[in-house]
Amino acid sequence: MNYQVIEKNFTVPCRHRVYFTNNSFDSESDLLESILRSVEDESPTKVFVVIDEGALGSRPQLEAEIESYFSGRPELFDWRGSQVYPGGEVLKNDLQYLSKLYAAVEAAKLCRHSYLIAIGGGALLDMVGLVAATAHRGIRHVRFPTTSLSQADGGVGVKNGINYLGKKNFIGSFALPYAVVNDHRLIESLPQQQFLEGAVEAIKVALIRNGALFEAIEAKVDLLLQGDVETGAWLIQESAREHVEHIVDGGDPFETTTARPLDFGHWVAHKLESISGFRISHGEAVAMGMAVDVLYSQRMGFLSEGIATRILSLIERLGFTLYTAELSELNSQGGSKIIEGLEEFREHLGGRLTITLLRGIGVSFEVHEMDAAVVLDCIEALSERHCGGTQGAG
Amino acid sequence: MNYQVIEKNFTVPCRHRVYFTNNSFDSESDLLESILRSVEDESPTKVFVVIDEGALGSRPQLEAEIESYFSGRPELFDWRGSQVYPGGEVLKNDLQYLSKLYAAVEAAKLCRHSYLIAIGGGALLDMVGLVAATAHRGIRHVRFPTTSLSQADGGVGVKNGINYLGKKNFIGSFALPYAVVNDHRLIESLPQQQFLEGAVEAIKVALIRNGALFEAIEAKVDLLLQGDVETGAWLIQESAREHVEHIVDGGDPFETTTARPLDFGHWVAHKLESISGFRISHGEAVAMGMAVDVLYSQRMGFLSEGIATRILSLIERLGFTLYTAELSELNSQGGSKIIEGLEEFREHLGGRLTITLLRGIGVSFEVHEMDAAVVLDCIEALSERHCGGTQGAG
Repeated sequence: MNYQVIEKNFTVPCRHRVYFTNNSFDSESDLLESILRSVEDESPTKVFVVIDEGALGSRPQLEAEIESYFSGRPELFDWRGSQVYPGGEVLKNDLQYLSKLYAAVEAAKLCRHSYLIAIGGGALLDMVGLVAATAHRGIRHVRFPTTSLSQADGGVGVKNGINYLGKKNFIGSFALPYAVVNDHRLIESLPQQQFLEGAVEAIKVALIRNGALFEAIEAKVDLLLQGDVETGAWLIQESAREHVEHIVDGGDPFETTTARPLDFGHWVAHKLESISGFRISHGEAVAMGMAVDVLYSQRMGFLSEGIATRILSLIERLGFTLYTAELSELNSQGGSKIIEGLEEFREHLGGRLTITLLRGIGVSFEVHEMDAAVVLDCIEALSERHCGGTQGAG
Repeated sequence: MNYQVIEKNFTVPCRHRVYFTNNSFDSESDLLESILRSVEDESPTKVFVVIDEGALGSRPQLEAEIESYFSGRPELFDWRGSQVYPGGEVLKNDLQYLSKLYAAVEAAKLCRHSYLIAIGGGALLDMVGLVAATAHRGIRHVRFPTTSLSQADGGVGVKNGINYLGKKNFIGSFALPYAVVNDHRLIESLPQQQFLEGAVEAIKVALIRNGALFEAIEAKVDLLLQGDVETGAWLIQESAREHVEHIVDGGDPFETTTARPLDFGHWVAHKLESISGFRISHGEAVAMGMAVDVLYSQRMGFLSEGIATRILSLIERLGFTLYTAELSELNSQGGSKIIEGLEEFREHLGGRLTITLLRGIGVSFEVHEMDAAVVLDCIEALSERHCGGTQGAG
């Protein structure tokens, strides 16, 4: 070989901060200004805020509170306004929202030292995060998740994206937000059912890496069902902490390998959401996806029947159904649609198929193939459990 | 303040590799397979190649050579085809090319472990780099710059982007390519004038950080003008090395601060390109932009007249003009268009205006304001030098 090479190995320092509070936009609170104020900034920094329509439903005064907070501190912030966008997958499916936000960034004359703040559910955080990561090659991005799901899981992570060519998150990037603020007041008035969506991801992260957390959730399940605010805040914080620690301490924050244990139960979940045209929510889908992979772990001899039953029971006690007809849907060739999800999951990750299974509560490991017949048996068992009302683990 | 925080500081390991060779696609060469083959890949990796129409002009057989190289190694590579795109700013201005490339990535079923290879000039590398950085949140991206400018400067860097809303590089990201291959054979048949475009960036990087390189260029200027292949390869390699070392060792590869010494002379250059509707090439514009900032450094007392004259003379000896009428154009209010470029440059960087000046050959420093009247005097002096044919530094 006739060549020369310049090879440089270096490290990029990163900081990931997730704050837990309940009064970010109180005019008296100085938390937010202390988070946003960077020592290197000499003049007031520009701030533009994107708000999820869904978040305004339970807190219609939020937009005015935010404007009042920032415009009341002109020595620190140059308030450039706010925009309201619909939440949910429509925001990630329709490119007009992306164009509208890029245009707003330009109209507000945001620069790399400005703040583009997103206040909303997972879809809104994903879309705004992509714009923040790519406008001017990166604007400071602060996230306020407003669903329990995003506070407990996706909102504290480092991914963004939109759907394109019919593929979920086809366009996106890995980008550390400047900060994440989990403000409990933004989710405390959510209906109980919506709040418990976040509990599913808490159970998931407990199952793959923290048995003690799983037991603590079991012990507090009645308080959760009663809507106890303190217990709810505890659950979100524990889940967020486990997710952040997994992402940062796992050694592969930007997913250069195929290992994705945080996606436990998610290969079924993604496919279920897609089959149902997103009628089935992410939390509902993950509940069923975990049930399939828990039963599969048991059938393959990795998990005892007692442990499997204990896990399924906790998910059910939180009000989640473990079976839906979509799990048994067939494609035009008469094959299982869910099984197609295995190949789609492999494609999405790239490289080898990698599926997380359990050897115990809090103990996960990876396999690189799944026996489709056993998966279908597990689905059948969940169907029987659902219709027969039995309490065994199949 | 009533809050809790999870704060995690961590580092992300990065590797930047720039290869210099002259036979990447020879069927006998195993350099490329050794660069691309990753130990973790178990099955053949998918490869899709994007080629600049401009690069095919001087090497029409290139596309066939590339296909032959990859499809001749089926045990290593899964050849997914190639596409040819026009080069130049049109590729970054028109979103249809971006859409076309995302669709090609999907049609070729590329995943995060596949290779999206770009072979072209700076604009093509920028556009393909953006797609590679954002499709599936990042596909392995390999760059083959095919202009002396991109081999000497932009192609070995870590930026990508497209123009949007009339703003250069409004959408883009910082992303390390998997590897850069500077194949001298791709540029050796370029017309002399095009080859010398790269020499301008070599002089720039020498001026800001390596006086010895500047002197070496002075010593070899006749060989360069004679089109000596070895000297040309040396110049590109030295310039690329200085750029890579500056980016990586400078401590801020992803430009979180406002320091951008590699942009010496570029505030004028960007504005000149824009005023002229890109009639003036980047190399020509940087030549004039450096001339303005060299004279400005002298007028402000940082640089002796002898040194300033020596710098301007070298640029001129390489065939570059130091003045064009666009430097003196007025806007509708009768103000200087070039001076508007100062504020645009500040906006682009964000935060404070930061301009690199010289204290000597190889010794740069930063200022945070420029005296517009002095800038206009420098332009006037360049105009006189140009029209009068004098050899003084104004």
